[in-house]
Amino acid sequence: MLDLQQIQELVKKKMDAFARQNSKGSIYEPIQYILNLGGKRLRPALSLMSCQLFNDNLEDAVHPALAVEVFHNFTLMHDDIMDNAPLRRGKPTVHAKWNSNTAILSGDAMMIQSYQLLAKTNPEHFAHIFQIFNKTALEVCEGQQMDMDFESRNDVTIDEYIEMIRLKTSVLLAGAMQIGAAIGGASLQDQEKIYRFGESTGLAFQLLDDYLDVFGDEAKVGKVKGGDIIADKKTFLQILALEIADDSSREVLKYWMGKKPKDPTEKVKAITAIFSKLNVEEALLEKVQTYHQQALFELKGLSVDPSRTESLIQLAEQMLERQH
Amino acid sequence: MLDLQQIQELVKKKMDAFARQNSKGSIYEPIQYILNLGGKRLRPALSLMSCQLFNDNLEDAVHPALAVEVFHNFTLMHDDIMDNAPLRRGKPTVHAKWNSNTAILSGDAMMIQSYQLLAKTNPEHFAHIFQIFNKTALEVCEGQQMDMDFESRNDVTIDEYIEMIRLKTSVLLAGAMQIGAAIGGASLQDQEKIYRFGESTGLAFQLLDDYLDVFGDEAKVGKVKGGDIIADKKTFLQILALEIADDSSREVLKYWMGKKPKDPTEKVKAITAIFSKLNVEEALLEKVQTYHQQALFELKGLSVDPSRTESLIQLAEQMLERQH
Repeated sequence: MLDLQQIQELVKKKMDAFARQNSKGSIYEPIQYILNLGGKRLRPALSLMSCQLFNDNLEDAVHPALAVEVFHNFTLMHDDIMDNAPLRRGKPTVHAKWNSNTAILSGDAMMIQSYQLLAKTNPEHFAHIFQIFNKTALEVCEGQQMDMDFESRNDVTIDEYIEMIRLKTSVLLAGAMQIGAAIGGASLQDQEKIYRFGESTGLAFQLLDDYLDVFGDEAKVGKVKGGDIIADKKTFLQILALEIADDSSREVLKYWMGKKPKDPTEKVKAITAIFSKLNVEEALLEKVQTYHQQALFELKGLSVDPSRTESLIQLAEQMLERQH
Repeated sequence: MLDLQQIQELVKKKMDAFARQNSKGSIYEPIQYILNLGGKRLRPALSLMSCQLFNDNLEDAVHPALAVEVFHNFTLMHDDIMDNAPLRRGKPTVHAKWNSNTAILSGDAMMIQSYQLLAKTNPEHFAHIFQIFNKTALEVCEGQQMDMDFESRNDVTIDEYIEMIRLKTSVLLAGAMQIGAAIGGASLQDQEKIYRFGESTGLAFQLLDDYLDVFGDEAKVGKVKGGDIIADKKTFLQILALEIADDSSREVLKYWMGKKPKDPTEKVKAITAIFSKLNVEEALLEKVQTYHQQALFELKGLSVDPSRTESLIQLAEQMLERQH
């Protein structure tokens, strides 16, 4: 059995090898570029660990796990165009470094490459994996569309917001895990539990991201503090605050929304103060805990020896420990 | 056995049914929209006819044929963004009617849908079909990249141009046909002949498009005459003219290239005159004939009764008869 670190090393080695193949031709260089920006490679690691719950032989799980990671990076390349984002992991985004057309086309090629990786799945499992992959891929697009639709709406509810982050982030973690488990030989019931583990963990992870943007340690988070506030982004904190605010708090929130001051310090400070006054960050952290507990509950229900679930529990805690 | 018209009716019915499913949600409406713009549905018709060369039962060939057409329409949606095209089949393009982000995202969803259609392929044939589909899909992206790269180059050769249109247009016709033949039960050898038929027919078809842009009957072609000349597009005619021109002809060509007069009539007239003087349209039409003959030669080599090839010959002639 591989431990968390060994799994992460395996994923890194395989992803680096895949990135190196994309060296020639103007369509492939941006693919190598975005893959070399790194990232935590959470999805393939979670996929392999889900396989390992049921089977020590991870060989068959490697290509589908890479397929998910390449698909994920394709969505980043296209999302960055749509969000007009200049930076990704501190480096220029593909459309900023090249241009939008290149980012569109290289992204398209990258999606096809993710299917080429998927084609290397053991035929015994292929049809089932392909179905999960396609369904998940389409849901990720639906999540991105919801996120864009939210920009022009002022009536987004908490439930809608949760559904958006579920589609945009959680289902791909969940799908990656179900794929790994299926290849490991899990029963359909166990696959569904693993899926729900991924889904809940993904929701907790994404909500925590909202929290850290405002209340996180700037040095650790690696982003400008309050970036979501500055951009008037709909987040759990903002939506809940507007929902429960008293008149004077709502007035402050409305006053700042849409304003783009040159120095945003005062805006960030004022809105953060309202969040704290309304205690929305406490509500958020409670929700993170609830999802985390739900995820652990699913793991406990699996028909495997509890000792096999340890590295998954460890990784989920790493993903969620940033709050402490 | 179905005749050409029956095949085209079958394709239309199935494509319309697929388009109707894409009715709800902002991500799916543009998919329905572009599919409802119509078009000749050449690729699925060619795919089914290739199946029918070997097998009267077309049922298994329908979903992969639709997958190719949906993939083709996805490339149109993204190409129109990259080419900044306002119109497609006389109607606003998706990015013009909605916006670029919607066209990017709906295009992505459409590509995934093409894989969902492909997933309905009979498992017996699936692995082989999937491999052809992925290879072809990536080549189409490479062709689009070459086409974009040509815009900023002045040293494009005829060979490079042929390679670009082979990738951008021909391989998808060829791939669609190989997929149909494979499902019909063709030997690998026959599949390769069918592939080369599609490839040569695609090249002839695309070259003819260059011809018709300048020398076609405007009413029949349905586009502004000389559109390629006005846009300084690299075409077979332009590249060959520059290659073989005497000094005075080259001077005229260079004089007009890059110029965007409000009334382009004189530019179109002057360049068309040079083309005619250099006889490049004759060279083009000869090449169209050569590719057409090559295609027919491949068909003759198939291990099927010649009577089965008749509707394919008929469709290829329809595709290429626009010159007469």
